[in-house]
Amino acid sequence: MQTLLNELKHIVGTAHVLTDGDLSAWTQDWRKRTHGQALAVVRPAHTTEVAQVVQACARYRREHPDSPVSIVPQGGNTGLVVGSTPDESGRQIVLSLQRMHAIRQVDGANLTLTVEAGCILQTVQEQAKAAGFWFPLSLAAEGSCTIGGNLGTNAGGTQVLRFGNTRELCLGLEVVTPQGEVWHGLSGLRKDNTGYDLKNLYIGSEGTLGIITAATLKLFPLPKAQLTAWVAVPSTQAAVTLLGLAQQHLGPSLTGFEMMGQFALSLVAKHFDSLRVPLYQDAPFCVLLESASQDAPTQARTQFENMLEAALEAGHASDAVVAENLAQAKVLWQIRESIPLAQAEEGLNIKHDISVPISSMAAFVQTTDAQLAAAIPGVRLVNFGHLGDGNLHYNVQAPVGIDAAVFLREHEPEVNRIVFDSVAAFGGSISAEHGIGSLKIEHLAHYKSPVALGLMRAIKLALDPQNLLNPARVIALP
Amino acid sequence: MQTLLNELKHIVGTAHVLTDGDLSAWTQDWRKRTHGQALAVVRPAHTTEVAQVVQACARYRREHPDSPVSIVPQGGNTGLVVGSTPDESGRQIVLSLQRMHAIRQVDGANLTLTVEAGCILQTVQEQAKAAGFWFPLSLAAEGSCTIGGNLGTNAGGTQVLRFGNTRELCLGLEVVTPQGEVWHGLSGLRKDNTGYDLKNLYIGSEGTLGIITAATLKLFPLPKAQLTAWVAVPSTQAAVTLLGLAQQHLGPSLTGFEMMGQFALSLVAKHFDSLRVPLYQDAPFCVLLESASQDAPTQARTQFENMLEAALEAGHASDAVVAENLAQAKVLWQIRESIPLAQAEEGLNIKHDISVPISSMAAFVQTTDAQLAAAIPGVRLVNFGHLGDGNLHYNVQAPVGIDAAVFLREHEPEVNRIVFDSVAAFGGSISAEHGIGSLKIEHLAHYKSPVALGLMRAIKLALDPQNLLNPARVIALP
Repeated sequence: MQTLLNELKHIVGTAHVLTDGDLSAWTQDWRKRTHGQALAVVRPAHTTEVAQVVQACARYRREHPDSPVSIVPQGGNTGLVVGSTPDESGRQIVLSLQRMHAIRQVDGANLTLTVEAGCILQTVQEQAKAAGFWFPLSLAAEGSCTIGGNLGTNAGGTQVLRFGNTRELCLGLEVVTPQGEVWHGLSGLRKDNTGYDLKNLYIGSEGTLGIITAATLKLFPLPKAQLTAWVAVPSTQAAVTLLGLAQQHLGPSLTGFEMMGQFALSLVAKHFDSLRVPLYQDAPFCVLLESASQDAPTQARTQFENMLEAALEAGHASDAVVAENLAQAKVLWQIRESIPLAQAEEGLNIKHDISVPISSMAAFVQTTDAQLAAAIPGVRLVNFGHLGDGNLHYNVQAPVGIDAAVFLREHEPEVNRIVFDSVAAFGGSISAEHGIGSLKIEHLAHYKSPVALGLMRAIKLALDPQNLLNPARVIALP
Repeated sequence: MQTLLNELKHIVGTAHVLTDGDLSAWTQDWRKRTHGQALAVVRPAHTTEVAQVVQACARYRREHPDSPVSIVPQGGNTGLVVGSTPDESGRQIVLSLQRMHAIRQVDGANLTLTVEAGCILQTVQEQAKAAGFWFPLSLAAEGSCTIGGNLGTNAGGTQVLRFGNTRELCLGLEVVTPQGEVWHGLSGLRKDNTGYDLKNLYIGSEGTLGIITAATLKLFPLPKAQLTAWVAVPSTQAAVTLLGLAQQHLGPSLTGFEMMGQFALSLVAKHFDSLRVPLYQDAPFCVLLESASQDAPTQARTQFENMLEAALEAGHASDAVVAENLAQAKVLWQIRESIPLAQAEEGLNIKHDISVPISSMAAFVQTTDAQLAAAIPGVRLVNFGHLGDGNLHYNVQAPVGIDAAVFLREHEPEVNRIVFDSVAAFGGSISAEHGIGSLKIEHLAHYKSPVALGLMRAIKLALDPQNLLNPARVIALP
């Protein structure tokens, strides 16, 4: 393989083919569940280098069928499903896009921004803002994840309710194919019906069909008024009803609708002394609700408060506070974002990232809660998430007094089966926003329809017949 | 082929396999440019029958490679690119979805509606409204086009600015594959990252990859306030600047932004006496601008008028009228929708449906106008369209006194080349919303990148290796 490594060094420069020292930043997954072994970490500086690296690996693979190399594309390596780190074979190249982080263009009149894949999400947000616009994609890892990773995994986050997933925020892509060709699809067009939708095929394919090297993203006017409320609700059903009411009152101004269970919030209160969690002690669930509009601030506030009053009067909410300023709003979001950290403080747990139709949400929670309680008496549910999108992080924590590691070892398959079977019964998804990677590939094979799996396999085989890009992720070839 | 016809009669019933009499409603395209010859028009009643028809045709094709049959899926047959009518071979089955028109479900809490492919778009709009919701897809053919056709062609229309194309309005599909399998992908989920985006691959594939039999669509709250203005603008650039200003003032409340050239409007005035066209005599362009929001009507009107005042003060607009009621708004839209009819009255013309980045719109129009004027002195441009989406129907009419048929015969290829070359130079699309069908397949082969065409061909071959579905549409196999 030394020949290949030499060729790669020739393409990107010796300094950017890493083979020695501590490579764990690239070879270990974000949650530190797996430790892979890379043949090399290769860091190209521009699209032509990416194409040449892919060509070199494809050629090597053709000429050495007995020791097949493959490529794992990687952005910020913050994914949660072990999709961007190498396996233990030592025959995988990690192709890191981190050096490709330029903002290529901001086009205000077209409301678009063109950026390279390795750019950190927060930088995209900041550059958009500096130009007077809003790029609304927002998620916990935004300080270290890259836009290429967000696109590769079709990331969700907290603004999906109004703006959609990353897919809906992207107008065009530049992609290096498994043959090392470059598709220049960086369209800033809002309408283009000239053939199959290649863009959306690459988005969410987790680096298995091509390597996204740049993207043209949608920008939006900065909002003139932003309002944030924390609302106590008497039940999941009440939260769903409140969502409908907020949509009727606010329309597209409603940008965020997060639901948090009492136990999840109690963990934040327990482990983060400095955070004062409002209203949670007397309510089974709280909702974090946000609006953004071009209305004048006083007018927007009146409309927002009218909505909350209507909800209180109708009994969909038992209490509510509205943030008086941006600082207060930030604290409310900090509480929401601290739930996973508080949960980690409490001990290991079994995480899920599921979605169901919003109309089935209450029934799903009630049914699944009951099934888990029956199977494992005392089990604790850290239930929170993007209710406005029908997406919950329905996490399962050991009963009080039970060692978390033992709980996981003994109960993880059973808990997954109960939760995923229930998701399937309600017509939901076992991975709403995190993707499949290698972590969920066997679950997918079980829960996805054979017709869909067959179609996915045919597409993978057609576009990457060598199985060069991120093999054994998302869909396994025979 | 009688065996096949008998088998099809067995599947859907003899009454629904049409072979005799006047079949032109199915075999002639909407603009009556082509007259095909069908082996039969087959009208299944439900998804299982569609699957059986496909299986029967696939089997026949395997067993009779010398007289290959194929299938042309058809909805309302209102497409503009000859994509849903049979060729002249007499070996194509028209598979009409018209009998499958049921609304399967309206789920208010999930804001979704599930409908069969053959349902007329206007019926979908009406059923949504009857349930208290808004399905915003709207286009000239809505009284006769079907939602399956809208999905197959990723139709655009007048509400794309806020809601996106048909693609963005769809959450899930049911599809019969070229193998006659059924993909049950009728998800009402807003987040589902379990594998490749099959839904968007089928949407816009014009029946070449699968047959859409049903869809789950997004619903929206009915707006509380709707405002419509007719604005005279001094130039294309001023219209683009007005668009940016309207977006800053109204955000997502801005739902429509149509631009119309003076000559286009003069044709409406000339051929439709009863329509009083406002403001067009002293301005090179007029804009039809619409907003819809959940604000109280008086409040929405103030905001809307503030925006117009700012535009007038800054000189982006020279005059403006606001519709006082829904009836007045309807008349303004009627003028806009009458342009193609008025143009037809004036005589045959060369139609285009192009898009460019909005920031390039003014330069594109100026450059292309000049090139056409230089090539064909006296040529007249009927320029109108969805400026908010960067999409123009940039149509070319014969000079005064020149016979339209002669003009088309002598100049169509030259005019297309000038317009499409200019579109390509500005990074645009030669088919923004109408699709490719058979009418533009050769243009596509010329203007689309070879990499993209190669990817499309690989996908078509992978999913429909028999080339059974709508062959020689969108992408030709060797």
